[in-house]
Amino acid sequence: MFSRPLARYTAALQQRSFAVLTRESINPKVLDAEYAVRGPLVLRSVEYTKRLKNGDKSLPFAKVIPCNIGNPLILKQEPIEFHRQVLALVNVPGLVDAPEAKKLFQPDAIARAKFYLDNIPGGTGAYGHSKGSEVVRIEVANFLERRDGYPADPEDIFLTDGASPAVQNTLMALIRDGNDAILAPIPQYPLYSAAIALNGGTLTGYYLDESKTWASTVDELTRATNEARNQGKTVRAIAVINPGNPTGQCLTTENIQEIIKFAQKEGVVILADEVYQENVYAAGKEFVSFRKVLKDMGPAYNNVELISFHSTSKGFTGECGRRGGYMELVNISECAKDQFYKLMSVNLCSNIEGQLMVGLMTNPPKEGDASYARYAEQRDTTLSSLKRRAVKLVKAFNELEGVTCNETEGAMYTFPQITLPPKAVEAAKKAGLAPDAFYCMEMLDTTGIIVVPGSGFGQQEGTWHFRSTILPPEEDIDEVIEKTATFHADFMNKYR
Amino acid sequence: MFSRPLARYTAALQQRSFAVLTRESINPKVLDAEYAVRGPLVLRSVEYTKRLKNGDKSLPFAKVIPCNIGNPLILKQEPIEFHRQVLALVNVPGLVDAPEAKKLFQPDAIARAKFYLDNIPGGTGAYGHSKGSEVVRIEVANFLERRDGYPADPEDIFLTDGASPAVQNTLMALIRDGNDAILAPIPQYPLYSAAIALNGGTLTGYYLDESKTWASTVDELTRATNEARNQGKTVRAIAVINPGNPTGQCLTTENIQEIIKFAQKEGVVILADEVYQENVYAAGKEFVSFRKVLKDMGPAYNNVELISFHSTSKGFTGECGRRGGYMELVNISECAKDQFYKLMSVNLCSNIEGQLMVGLMTNPPKEGDASYARYAEQRDTTLSSLKRRAVKLVKAFNELEGVTCNETEGAMYTFPQITLPPKAVEAAKKAGLAPDAFYCMEMLDTTGIIVVPGSGFGQQEGTWHFRSTILPPEEDIDEVIEKTATFHADFMNKYR
Repeated sequence: MFSRPLARYTAALQQRSFAVLTRESINPKVLDAEYAVRGPLVLRSVEYTKRLKNGDKSLPFAKVIPCNIGNPLILKQEPIEFHRQVLALVNVPGLVDAPEAKKLFQPDAIARAKFYLDNIPGGTGAYGHSKGSEVVRIEVANFLERRDGYPADPEDIFLTDGASPAVQNTLMALIRDGNDAILAPIPQYPLYSAAIALNGGTLTGYYLDESKTWASTVDELTRATNEARNQGKTVRAIAVINPGNPTGQCLTTENIQEIIKFAQKEGVVILADEVYQENVYAAGKEFVSFRKVLKDMGPAYNNVELISFHSTSKGFTGECGRRGGYMELVNISECAKDQFYKLMSVNLCSNIEGQLMVGLMTNPPKEGDASYARYAEQRDTTLSSLKRRAVKLVKAFNELEGVTCNETEGAMYTFPQITLPPKAVEAAKKAGLAPDAFYCMEMLDTTGIIVVPGSGFGQQEGTWHFRSTILPPEEDIDEVIEKTATFHADFMNKYR
Repeated sequence: MFSRPLARYTAALQQRSFAVLTRESINPKVLDAEYAVRGPLVLRSVEYTKRLKNGDKSLPFAKVIPCNIGNPLILKQEPIEFHRQVLALVNVPGLVDAPEAKKLFQPDAIARAKFYLDNIPGGTGAYGHSKGSEVVRIEVANFLERRDGYPADPEDIFLTDGASPAVQNTLMALIRDGNDAILAPIPQYPLYSAAIALNGGTLTGYYLDESKTWASTVDELTRATNEARNQGKTVRAIAVINPGNPTGQCLTTENIQEIIKFAQKEGVVILADEVYQENVYAAGKEFVSFRKVLKDMGPAYNNVELISFHSTSKGFTGECGRRGGYMELVNISECAKDQFYKLMSVNLCSNIEGQLMVGLMTNPPKEGDASYARYAEQRDTTLSSLKRRAVKLVKAFNELEGVTCNETEGAMYTFPQITLPPKAVEAAKKAGLAPDAFYCMEMLDTTGIIVVPGSGFGQQEGTWHFRSTILPPEEDIDEVIEKTATFHADFMNKYR
C-alpha cells in the first residue's frame, strides 16, 4: 500500500499518460452498445453521395437510394399541407392576422395556429411544461378516447422528442443493474438493444417465428423468461413492437390478450411500441392498441403496467425530422409518474414544434373543414401507395434465388431471409463482416441501394436477412427491384 | 436453497405481489437524481396559473411571474424576425416561390430558406445526418473561426436538441461507475448533478468564492480533486459554466488559462458550458471561449481534451422551445468521436428546426442584407435591456435587510445570499423544507413570483440563497422589485 501522497502522485502520472476519452477509458457500456441502422454502411453511403454530388462518374450507380431507414419525406412522400401551414403560421409573430396570409393559408390552418398561440405561453420559442403543452396533451387524450373507446387523462401523457428518447427514459427507470432483464423480440429494432446496453441491463430475446409470419407465442415468452431467471436475472419488462419492426407482423386481439396475461402472471411491464399504428396493409388485419385490449379485459387486469409509444415520424405523417412523439402511462404508480416528470424536466421540455406536430397528427382536419379534402387525399394517396409498394417488393424478393420473404402486414419494412452460398460466408469472414453485412455492403457498392443486415436486428443462429424499407417512390420501385435482382443474381453466381 | 421450479414459483409470486415501477422497485439512480429548477415550486405555480385563468380571485396576486427559469420569450422578449421568417418559409413546400411570399418575407430570408431546402435532403421533415445537417455544421464552424481566430472542422461539431442532452451524452461517455468523479462548481446548474446521478457517477464539488464575485481558484480545484482521490475516486472531467449559472461571473483569460493548466496536469477533460456567451453585461468584461484560450496556449496544450456546449436558448436569440444546440470536440480521440456519433444515432438526429436555429444564430444577417438593420436593432435592444434589468435587480436585492448580491457580470441570473432569522429556519424545518426553499415557497404564495432556492444549486453549508432570472420585462421589473421588497420585509418581521 502506498502512502497517500505517493498514491496521489502515481495516480496523477497515470492519468497524464493517456487521454480520458479513448477506447481504453471511455465508458464500456457506450463502447458495447450497437446501433445497426446507422453504422459503417451509412457512413459509406454518405461518402458515395458526396462523390456523386461532386460529379464523380466512377461509381456504378448514379444515385444512392436509402432503403435503410423509415424516412419517407426524403423519398418524395409529401408532407401533410395542413400541418405545415400551421407550423409556418405559429412561427412568425403577427402572421395569423396578416391580410396576405389569407391568400397563402387555409382558414382552418389560421384558426388552429391562433389556438396554439393563444394556449401555449411564449409560443414555439419558449420552454413549455416538461410533460408537454397541456393543450396538445388534451388533443392526444381525445385521440386515444376516439381510437379505443376509453377516456385518457392528459396527465398520463408525456410529449417527447420522438419515441426514441421516451423508450430510453423508460428503460432507464426500469434497469437498476445488469441483473435486470428486458424481454425484447428477436429480430428487434436496435434502439432496444442499444438503450438496454447503455443502461447496463440485460436483453433477453424472445424469438419471433418466421415460419408463422413472425408470430410471438406465450411458450416462447415463457422459455425466454425462465432462461433469464435461471441465470439469476429479474425480468422487468417486455417490449412489443406492433406492427413489427423490422418484421412487419400485425398482432391480433388474441395475441395481445395472451401477452397481457403473460405480463400479469410474470409481473412485467409492457412496453408497447405502436409507432406504426397507421401503417397496416394486409387484408383482414387492423391495428388494435394494447391499451384498448387491456381496458377491454376489465378490472381484473388493471394491475398490468403498460407504457405505449407513438411518434409523428411514421404513419402517413412521416415527420421524422420534427422529433415529435408521446408516451402514455397506464396503471403506473404516481411515484413513477413523478419520476418520469423529473426525467423530462432535466431536459426542460421536448421541442415545441414536435409537440405541435403530435397535436396535428392526433387532431387533424375534420369533415367540413377547409383543409379536410386535401388532408384526406394526401392520407389516402400515401397509405394506398405504401401498400402497393409493400406488396410489390415482397413479391419481388420471393422471386429471388434462395430468398423467402413474409408478407409486410404493417409498418414500413420487408425482412427477407437470404440463403448465402458457403463461398460468400467465407469471403465475409475474410472481410471481417457478418455474412449478411457483407451482402449488404456489396449491394451498396454495386447498386447504391442501402439496406440493413439482419445481424443488426438479431436473427435465429445460422439464418441471414436484410431489412429494406418499402419507401422508394412508386416511380422508382421497379428500378430498385431490377437493380436488386441483378445484384442478387450476380452475387449468387460470383460466390456459387 | 430452493430447487429450481420452487425458486421460480417463489420469484413469480414475489413479482406478482407488487408493481415494477414503484418507489421500492424503480431504478434508485432515477429516484436519487434531483432537478430543482422544476420542482414542487413549479408545480404549485402551475396550479396558481390555472386558478387565475379560471377566474379565482382568492389569491393575493393577479399573475404568476416566472423568474425561475431562463425562458425569455415567455416574458415578452421578441424572437428575432429573420430567424422566424426562415423557419416559416422552409416548412411550407413551394412558399419560397409564391409571389405573395414576397410581401410577407424579406428577400434574404427567402434566399436563406432556399439555401436550406436545397441543401438539407427532405427538408425539416426528414431525419438528417445524426451529427446534424452538414450545411449547418459548416455555419457553426465558420462562426467558431470568426469568434476565435482558429478554423474549426464541421466533423467535430455535433448538433443536439439543446445543450442539455449534449451534456448528458458526454457524461454518459465519461462515467463508468460510481468511482468516476466529475468536478462541478458549487453552486451549479443542476443539470450536472442530475445527469451525474443518473449515470451513477460522483459529483465532486469545487466551491466558487462568493466573496470574490464567485471566482474559482486552482487551490480550490486541487483541494476538491485531492479529496475525491483520497476517497478512491478517479476524477474524469471538470465542468465549467462561463458565464456562470446561477452565479453570473464571467471568467478572464487568466482564469481560463489556469483551468486549462490544471486540466492538463490532472488529466481531466474540460466541459465548457458556454451557453451564455452572448450575455455579458459588466463593464470591462468580455466572453472568451475555452477554445480560443486553449489554442492560444499553443501545441504544448493540444493534449487537453475540451468539449464545449452552446445553445439557441440563451443569448439574445432566446429560442428555448426550439431545442437547438451544438457541442464541439477539441483534442478528442477519433474513437470517442465515433462513440458520440453512435450515441447521437440511437436517437436518429436532433430536430431539424432546432438545427436550423443553430445555423441562423451562428450565421445571422450581415451588413447590407435586407434584414440586417432589424436584426441588429432587436439584438441591441434585447442585450441593453437585459443589462439594465440585471443592474436594477442586483441593486434592489442589495438594499434588502440581510441580503447581499454579487454583480451579474453575465448570464441571466442574480443569486443573492439571504440571512434568515432563526425562527424562519425553525418554521422551515417544521414544514420539511430547506430554509431557502421555505422562503421561496412563501414568496410564491404571497407574490406569485417564482424563484429557485439556492439549495437546488448547492451552496456553502449554512448559507442560503435564491436564484432569480433578470428576465421580467422592463415595464414589470419595478413591480417585481417592489413586491419582492414588501414580501421580504414582511417575512423578516414575521419570523424575527
